[in-house]
Amino acid sequence: MNKSSFERPLMADCVPDLVATARGDLPATLVIRGGTLVNVISGEILPEMSIAVQGARIAYVGKDVSHTIGEHTRIIEANGKYIAPGLLDGHCHIESTQMKVTEFARAVLPSGTTGGFFDPHEISNVLGLKGLRLMLDEARTTPMAAYMQVASCVPSTHPGLETTGAYIGPEEVAEALSWGPDMIGLGEVMNFPGVVYGDETMIGEIQATLRAGKVADGHFTWAADDWRLPAYAASGVTGDHECVTKEDVVERLRLGMYAKMRQGSAWHDVAETIKACTELGLDTRRMMLVTDDRSSESLLKEGHMDFVVRLAISQGVKPVTAFQMATINTAERFGVARDIGAVIPGNIADIILLDGRLADVRVGMTIAAGQVVAENGKMTAVWDSFTYPEEALNTVKLEANIQPEDLELAAPIAEGTIGAKIIHVTENHVDTKEKHLPVTVENGKVVVSTSGEVCKIAVLERHKQTGNRAVALVGGIGFTSPAAIAMTVAHDSHNLLIIGNDDALMAEAGNRVIRMQGGVAVVTAAGVTEFPLRIAGLMSTESFEVVAAQSAAVSEALQSAGCTLNNAFMTLSLLALVVIPELRLSDKGLVRISAEGIELVSLFDEVVDNTPVAPSGNE
Amino acid sequence: MNKSSFERPLMADCVPDLVATARGDLPATLVIRGGTLVNVISGEILPEMSIAVQGARIAYVGKDVSHTIGEHTRIIEANGKYIAPGLLDGHCHIESTQMKVTEFARAVLPSGTTGGFFDPHEISNVLGLKGLRLMLDEARTTPMAAYMQVASCVPSTHPGLETTGAYIGPEEVAEALSWGPDMIGLGEVMNFPGVVYGDETMIGEIQATLRAGKVADGHFTWAADDWRLPAYAASGVTGDHECVTKEDVVERLRLGMYAKMRQGSAWHDVAETIKACTELGLDTRRMMLVTDDRSSESLLKEGHMDFVVRLAISQGVKPVTAFQMATINTAERFGVARDIGAVIPGNIADIILLDGRLADVRVGMTIAAGQVVAENGKMTAVWDSFTYPEEALNTVKLEANIQPEDLELAAPIAEGTIGAKIIHVTENHVDTKEKHLPVTVENGKVVVSTSGEVCKIAVLERHKQTGNRAVALVGGIGFTSPAAIAMTVAHDSHNLLIIGNDDALMAEAGNRVIRMQGGVAVVTAAGVTEFPLRIAGLMSTESFEVVAAQSAAVSEALQSAGCTLNNAFMTLSLLALVVIPELRLSDKGLVRISAEGIELVSLFDEVVDNTPVAPSGNE
Repeated sequence: MNKSSFERPLMADCVPDLVATARGDLPATLVIRGGTLVNVISGEILPEMSIAVQGARIAYVGKDVSHTIGEHTRIIEANGKYIAPGLLDGHCHIESTQMKVTEFARAVLPSGTTGGFFDPHEISNVLGLKGLRLMLDEARTTPMAAYMQVASCVPSTHPGLETTGAYIGPEEVAEALSWGPDMIGLGEVMNFPGVVYGDETMIGEIQATLRAGKVADGHFTWAADDWRLPAYAASGVTGDHECVTKEDVVERLRLGMYAKMRQGSAWHDVAETIKACTELGLDTRRMMLVTDDRSSESLLKEGHMDFVVRLAISQGVKPVTAFQMATINTAERFGVARDIGAVIPGNIADIILLDGRLADVRVGMTIAAGQVVAENGKMTAVWDSFTYPEEALNTVKLEANIQPEDLELAAPIAEGTIGAKIIHVTENHVDTKEKHLPVTVENGKVVVSTSGEVCKIAVLERHKQTGNRAVALVGGIGFTSPAAIAMTVAHDSHNLLIIGNDDALMAEAGNRVIRMQGGVAVVTAAGVTEFPLRIAGLMSTESFEVVAAQSAAVSEALQSAGCTLNNAFMTLSLLALVVIPELRLSDKGLVRISAEGIELVSLFDEVVDNTPVAPSGNE
Repeated sequence: MNKSSFERPLMADCVPDLVATARGDLPATLVIRGGTLVNVISGEILPEMSIAVQGARIAYVGKDVSHTIGEHTRIIEANGKYIAPGLLDGHCHIESTQMKVTEFARAVLPSGTTGGFFDPHEISNVLGLKGLRLMLDEARTTPMAAYMQVASCVPSTHPGLETTGAYIGPEEVAEALSWGPDMIGLGEVMNFPGVVYGDETMIGEIQATLRAGKVADGHFTWAADDWRLPAYAASGVTGDHECVTKEDVVERLRLGMYAKMRQGSAWHDVAETIKACTELGLDTRRMMLVTDDRSSESLLKEGHMDFVVRLAISQGVKPVTAFQMATINTAERFGVARDIGAVIPGNIADIILLDGRLADVRVGMTIAAGQVVAENGKMTAVWDSFTYPEEALNTVKLEANIQPEDLELAAPIAEGTIGAKIIHVTENHVDTKEKHLPVTVENGKVVVSTSGEVCKIAVLERHKQTGNRAVALVGGIGFTSPAAIAMTVAHDSHNLLIIGNDDALMAEAGNRVIRMQGGVAVVTAAGVTEFPLRIAGLMSTESFEVVAAQSAAVSEALQSAGCTLNNAFMTLSLLALVVIPELRLSDKGLVRISAEGIELVSLFDEVVDNTPVAPSGNE
C-alpha cells in the first residue's frame, strides 16, 4: 500500500476548485452516491442523497451529482447505507489509551471517529510543552482532524500539593496557542477553586486563551447548585465534562457552557446526564458526547464515539440528535463548524457510511479529509510512523531499588487499632469516597491483611529526584491474595503509583516499572505481568493490537488477584488525581477535595494537627 | 443629562473583575433582581432569576445575587418582568431607514434591539470604503453592538449593467476587514451567478473574507431547488436572507447555511418562511429573524426586531424559540456568541426587560453594554453626535436642469400601439414581475396616461457625470392623477430615480432632488413634498422624529396621488436593483434577472436585437 498524507487545506484556498467542481467544470475526486444523509444541521434524515468531493473538501451535496463525475472520479455506491459526518470526540485524553496518537487514530478511525479535541495533559505533566508539541506533531501526520489543547493545570492544582515534571503558566499557554489553528484552546481548568478565588496563574491562562481567540474548557466538581458555578462561568470557561447528574448538565447549559456528557471506560455518566435531554427536554445544541478516557481494551471491545452515540440513542435520544451531540455541536463549541461536523458543501470530507439501522451506529466505511481510510472495521490507509526522541523515552528518574520498608506506614500508636481515612474506590465513577475505618497497628506500623478490604497505596515522585514518597490506605480494590500493581500512569502528575497488600510485592512491582522506564507491572502469586509504556511512562511504542493485548493481560492479572473493578487499571490510575473528590494521594500526602477547597489532610483520625502525611520520604 | 460612552471591552480584559464580582469581592455596578429569565441557551423560561453586572459585562446569573451588591450598585427590580437578551438584527441596511446610525440606534434601542449586523452597501455604492468607514466610526459612538459588513457587490453585478460611485473588490474587502473585530464579514454576495460561474472578483472577495477569519453572507434568488444553490454554498457563503418560501429555508439549512427570515417594511416573508419551523419542524438553530430594510415609519409604528419576534410567535413559534432566532442563533452565526446573544456570565450586558406576556414582546427597559439606555419606549442615554464631512454631503453630481424632453421614450414605430416589457411592482414583496402590455405611441414617443396603469421610470447616473440616462415603463404604481417622485435612494447604485406619469412633473421632481443634494421629492397637483437626504443622498442629518415625519409626508403625498402600495417609497426605491428578479431599470437600461442570469434586455417586444434601451442619454 502507498503511504498517504492527509492535508486539510484552508477553505479559502479551496474555493475556486470547489465551485468549479460544483458547477461541473472540474471532475470530483470522490463521489458518494445515493445514500441516506444524516443532516445534522436541519435535523433531518434525507433519502437518496449524493456527495461530491474535491480533494479534502465537499464540493456538492444534492440529489444528483452526475455532473461532477469524471473519468478518474472514485465512486462509492451508498445505496442502503446512511451517510453521516465523521464523529468527533469533544474531550479526550489520548494518553489514557496508552497508545501514541498514530495508534489511537488506527484504533478509532474504523469505528467512525474522524476528529477530536485532545487535551494531552498527561504528557504535559511529564515533559511540559515539549510533550504537547510531540503529540501535536504526531497528530498532524494522521488522517484525523486532531485538535490539541494546552494543558491548563500542570500541576493540577499547585506545587504544594504534588510534584510534576513540568510547569505550565500563562506564558506557556500563549506560546502553545500560537503554534497553529489546530491548537484549539485551553484544556480542562481543573483548579476550579483557583479560578473562583482569583488565582493569578489560572486567571492568566484563561486570559491568554481568550486573547488568542480560543476557548477554555472546564472541570468543576462541586455540586450543580453550588453558588460558585456561575463565578467559574464568569471566568470565560465555557465547556465542562464533569457532569455526573442531569442537574449538572442543566446548570451548565443555563450558564451558557457546553455540557459534555462522558462515557469513559471507567466513568459511565451518559445514562444519567442524558436525562437533561430525554426527561427535561432542554435545548440540545450545547450538549456534547465525549469519552474523556477510554482504554485500548474498551476501544477494541466497544468502540469509541460510535459506542457513545449508540448508548445515547439507547437511552431514548432521537438518532439525529445523538449524532448532533457528537458532530455539529462539538464543532460549534470549538468554532470549527465550517471545517468539520457536518456533511455540507465546503466542509472537510470527514464522512462515515453506516450499515443497518441508524440507531445501531454500525460504521462500515470511514472517509477522512476526502480519502477512504477504513473499511469494514479495518484501517486501509497507512502513513509514515512518528518517532519519539530519547528524551521522551527516559522519564522515570528513580533508582530501581525500592525496599519493602520504604512502603511501611508509621502510625502514631505502637500497637492496637486506630481510625484512619481510607480512599474508597467507586466502580465506574471518577470520584472516590472518604471512609473512616479502624486499622491494625503492630510495632508502630499499620498492617494490612493480604485478603482484607484495605490495601496500601504509595506515590513516589519520579520526575525531579526529590525522593518524595507518601503512603496511605485504599479500599474497594478487592485483592483476595497477596498482590501489587505499580504504574507510572498516575494522573495527573504521573509519579510512580503502587497499590498492594504486601510490601515486598509492592517493592518488586515498583522496581520492575522503573527498569522498564515506565509502564505497569502486576505482581501476584501467579506471576508477573508487565505492560511497558516507554513514551513519557504513559504510552506504548507498540501497535494498537499489542497495546490492547498487554492492557488486557494487566486486567486479567488484576482480576485473578481478586480486583474485579470494571476497567480497574484506569480507575486505579486516577487515585492520585487531586482535583476530583473526595480523597486522593499525591507524593506530598493525602489530599481532600471538597466544597471547602483542596487541602492536605492527615491520614489518621486521631492526629489533631494538620501535618501532611509523608512518613518516610526525605522532603 | 450626562453624555456617556459605551465601551465594549474584550472579555479577556474583564476576567479578573468579573470573577471578583461573582464571588462577592467587588460590588456589581448593576443588579437586576428577581425577574423571569428567557434562557436562550437551555431553551427555558426560568422564574426568579437575578443578574449582576460589572461594567459592560455580566458577572453573575443566579437565584441570589445579594453577595454582589454594594453601596453604589444600581438595583433594578424585575419582579413580574421577563429578562431577555437584547435583540439582534442579523441582516439590516441602516441606510434604508434614511437615518444615520446615531438616529437608527435611538429608534431601535427603546424597542429592544441592542445589536445588529449591518451591511452599509448603499453608502458604499456612493462613497466606497470611505462611506463604510464613516458609518463604522459613527456606529462605534453608539450603545449598540453594531457590527459592520463590507459590501461585496459594488456595483451589484458589474459595471456593464449599472454605474456606481465606487468599486469594491478583493483588496478593498481585505482592507476593510482589518479595521477591527466589529468588521464582521462580507455583505450579501448578490452577484450569485458570478459566484457560481467563477467570477474572479466575487471568488476573490469571498477568499479574502475567509482568510480574515470572517463570514460571508449570501443573496440567492433562483429557486430553492435550483441545482446551483449547492454550488453557491460551496463558495463559502454561509448565510442568506433571500428566503421567500419555506422551501427556500429548508434548502439553505440542508446546505449548512443560516436561513434568515425577513420582515422588512416592504417584504413580508416571515409568515411563509417560518413554516420551515412551524410546519416542517426542522432544527431551528440556523434560523434567524432579520429586517433587511425597514423604514423610519415602520420603526415608529411597529417597532424593529421586537415586531419581527412578535410576528414569529403569532405564527406559532414557541416564544423562547423565536427569541433564539433573534439572539443566540444570530450571535452564533457571526461567531460572537461569547459577547452577545444570551444572558450568561461573561457576556456583554445587553439585556431587555419585558412587561406583560412574553409573546407580546413589550420592551420596557433596554440595557446596553451594562447601562440603562432606554425606558418605557424612550431613550434615556445621550452621547456625542457624529458629524459627516462635506465630501459625504455633496454627492449628487448632476445639474438641476432636467428637461421634460429628457424623459421622453422613443419607440420603434411612429404611431399606434406596440408591446412593451413593463416592470410590475409586487406589493410587500421584493421581486417584480415582468409583464408584457401594449403601449400607445404618438409622434414616435410612448404616451402614458396620467390616470393609467403604466408610468414612466427613469434612471439618471449621478456619480460620475457620464450623462447616462435610461427610461422605461413601470406598472402597479397606482397614480390616478398627474404625479412624479424623484429620489437618490435607488438601490443599489443610487442614481437619480424618477417615476411618474407626467414628463414635466418628473423633471421638476428630479431637479428638486438635485438642488437638495439628495433626497426625495414628490410633485403632484396638491403640491410639493420634500425629504432631504444629505448624507450620500441616502440619509438625513436630522433626528429620528424629523425623519419619520418627513418620510410619512412622502407616503401621504404618494397616497394622495393614488399610490397606495404598502411602504411605497421603499418598494419604489428597489426598482433599480438589478439582482432581484424579474425586471429592473439601471442607468444602462432595462435589466432582466432570471434563472438564466442577469442581462440587459430591450424594452419593446418587437425589437429583435439585443441593444440596451438608453434612448436619449449620451452614453
